[in-house]
Amino acid sequence: MNAPTSHAPILLTPGPLTTHLETRQAMLRDWGSWDQPFNALTAQVCDRLLRIVHGEHAHVCIPLQGSGTFAVEAALGTLIAPTGKVLVPMQGAYCERIVKILTILGKGVVRYDLQEDQPVDPAQLEALLNADPTVTHVALVHCETTTGLLNPLTRIAEAVERCGRQLIVDAMSTFGALPIDLRHTRAAAVISASGKCLEGVPGMGFVIADRGVLQSSAANSHSLALDLHDQWQYMQATTQWRYTPPTHVMAALHTALELHEREGGVAARAARYQDNCATLITGMRALGFVPYLREADQAPIIATFHAPRDAAYDFATFYQSMRAKGFVLYPGKLTRAATFRIGCIGAITRDDITRMLQSVRQTMLEMGMH
Amino acid sequence: MNAPTSHAPILLTPGPLTTHLETRQAMLRDWGSWDQPFNALTAQVCDRLLRIVHGEHAHVCIPLQGSGTFAVEAALGTLIAPTGKVLVPMQGAYCERIVKILTILGKGVVRYDLQEDQPVDPAQLEALLNADPTVTHVALVHCETTTGLLNPLTRIAEAVERCGRQLIVDAMSTFGALPIDLRHTRAAAVISASGKCLEGVPGMGFVIADRGVLQSSAANSHSLALDLHDQWQYMQATTQWRYTPPTHVMAALHTALELHEREGGVAARAARYQDNCATLITGMRALGFVPYLREADQAPIIATFHAPRDAAYDFATFYQSMRAKGFVLYPGKLTRAATFRIGCIGAITRDDITRMLQSVRQTMLEMGMH
Repeated sequence: MNAPTSHAPILLTPGPLTTHLETRQAMLRDWGSWDQPFNALTAQVCDRLLRIVHGEHAHVCIPLQGSGTFAVEAALGTLIAPTGKVLVPMQGAYCERIVKILTILGKGVVRYDLQEDQPVDPAQLEALLNADPTVTHVALVHCETTTGLLNPLTRIAEAVERCGRQLIVDAMSTFGALPIDLRHTRAAAVISASGKCLEGVPGMGFVIADRGVLQSSAANSHSLALDLHDQWQYMQATTQWRYTPPTHVMAALHTALELHEREGGVAARAARYQDNCATLITGMRALGFVPYLREADQAPIIATFHAPRDAAYDFATFYQSMRAKGFVLYPGKLTRAATFRIGCIGAITRDDITRMLQSVRQTMLEMGMH
Repeated sequence: MNAPTSHAPILLTPGPLTTHLETRQAMLRDWGSWDQPFNALTAQVCDRLLRIVHGEHAHVCIPLQGSGTFAVEAALGTLIAPTGKVLVPMQGAYCERIVKILTILGKGVVRYDLQEDQPVDPAQLEALLNADPTVTHVALVHCETTTGLLNPLTRIAEAVERCGRQLIVDAMSTFGALPIDLRHTRAAAVISASGKCLEGVPGMGFVIADRGVLQSSAANSHSLALDLHDQWQYMQATTQWRYTPPTHVMAALHTALELHEREGGVAARAARYQDNCATLITGMRALGFVPYLREADQAPIIATFHAPRDAAYDFATFYQSMRAKGFVLYPGKLTRAATFRIGCIGAITRDDITRMLQSVRQTMLEMGMH
């Protein structure tokens, strides 16, 4: 293999993450964006993405250039009318980002304030919606990567449906790894990106949108580049992307989706990530680290740990020492508690986590921690 | 080499285009987006991009996720105040796209109507600006890829400067291949993307923006994802991208820029593309094809040819036959004339063009053309 590959560290981050060599090798060829083989690739990718969440019947898949945030802004800008009012459960940085986008777009926002370690309570959400009939949408982050907190999506969707509102799900860090079934979970849109649990490389997002909602959203978008309706209309008419697609990123996602299916789909990926996460948390506990979340609220995506109280600890040294041993960790993003994060996702297994735990132990010794 | 590579056709399109294997191999490793080596890669890429247009003194480089159009919308949305009024020379699809963006953004637009084969006349532009003092900006497409038409950038910039307005240059299909010198050519912004004449892969754009203009544009953007000022501020503060970067696309661009420098920079790339273009046009003329543009107005980027009047010709068959021989051509985009296009850019040389011309000859024979 190419020299740099063997020296690349293992990424224990919420994406970009460690991918399969086969996925990266799919980028070794150039594709014409007007050429039929590439259009077929796009169609296959969209079809597979739809099937992962059982959206074949009522939904369509619209891929979009850019990072996941671009897809989130595109969905909020396109699918919510300018007069819309959105309730957002507040649990961390990605919820805050949704509020920031809605504010810039001039749409109404209602904050549903929660603690950073507190999942959405569907009953409480329902009461809030009943109390404010002017709210048209709920924008939910499925797993808040700030902490790794998992929200009960199915029961939330039921509550939103009972109240006759629309649900938009930021499934950035869960799509492909945690089950989402649009036959039973009603959502106007589910948003994710190439470089997360699908284990592709970063560079494109996608929105699984309810066909009826999308069809009635022609005039909403504040942006040309981020207009999902226009992107979809163009693709319907031509089978091509509206503007230059990230061809190599798409080819990598195509291979990553084949690997996803070959592994056994969502159930198998969920099981591997659960195993990674359980190994991680058990091992870190044994080394004296304290997880930030209650076990029941922990998604098998990324785990947050309190910074040790040991005077010998500081994150920069810890990070660099782990980096030198071949593991990239992730800083904390909490406002109120000193923490750091370790991801469980990507093309990694329990063996990688076990080796990483040995390196943590070695690093603690080197730093003089007890 | 990996099997698909050897079967990939040569892309004679305006991007995505044929890249060097070395550029694609740079995507064989994963990068952490928070990790120092990737931040160093970003800094090096931005530095090289600035130097290519001699913008080190007064400009900054802001990379942006997405296709080139995303960077164009970001520049127009961020650098032009909501009260701005933009004069746009109209020469084809990319000028129309700029007008479409400005209209959605609610900024003032003045169309300077031209024929699709007619370059901007700097004296006429100056007269138009003098006649309308409410115009604040000129948005120019350096080479209109619809035809391959080249505009006289230096003289246009002088005219805009004399009138005290600001110039925004869409240099999508010229950056790195045609000289732009910001020490002498005054521009508020020059916009391009990874997958054009720099011969990277598609997936990110960038804006070379005047530092003073950018500094005073904090409150302008209609979008969070496309807010160049916010992107720049975050990068200044952290050395990181604001949202997940297309890490592999960036690594490919880094290698592509090394190859650009190794080849001899802009002058050498311009010379190779000129050679490709001259070989193409001379060869196509010899086969009876008629170029759409006058020779003086032809950029060495992409050439447009009139569809042959021969009854045996149709583009779909011509395209498929050339495709089967290993060459991807490009359809025409003109409203008034039946045309097709052949690109001269990418990691290709005169030999590739010569082989392509032989295939055109063979295709004509197969199609029974005279």
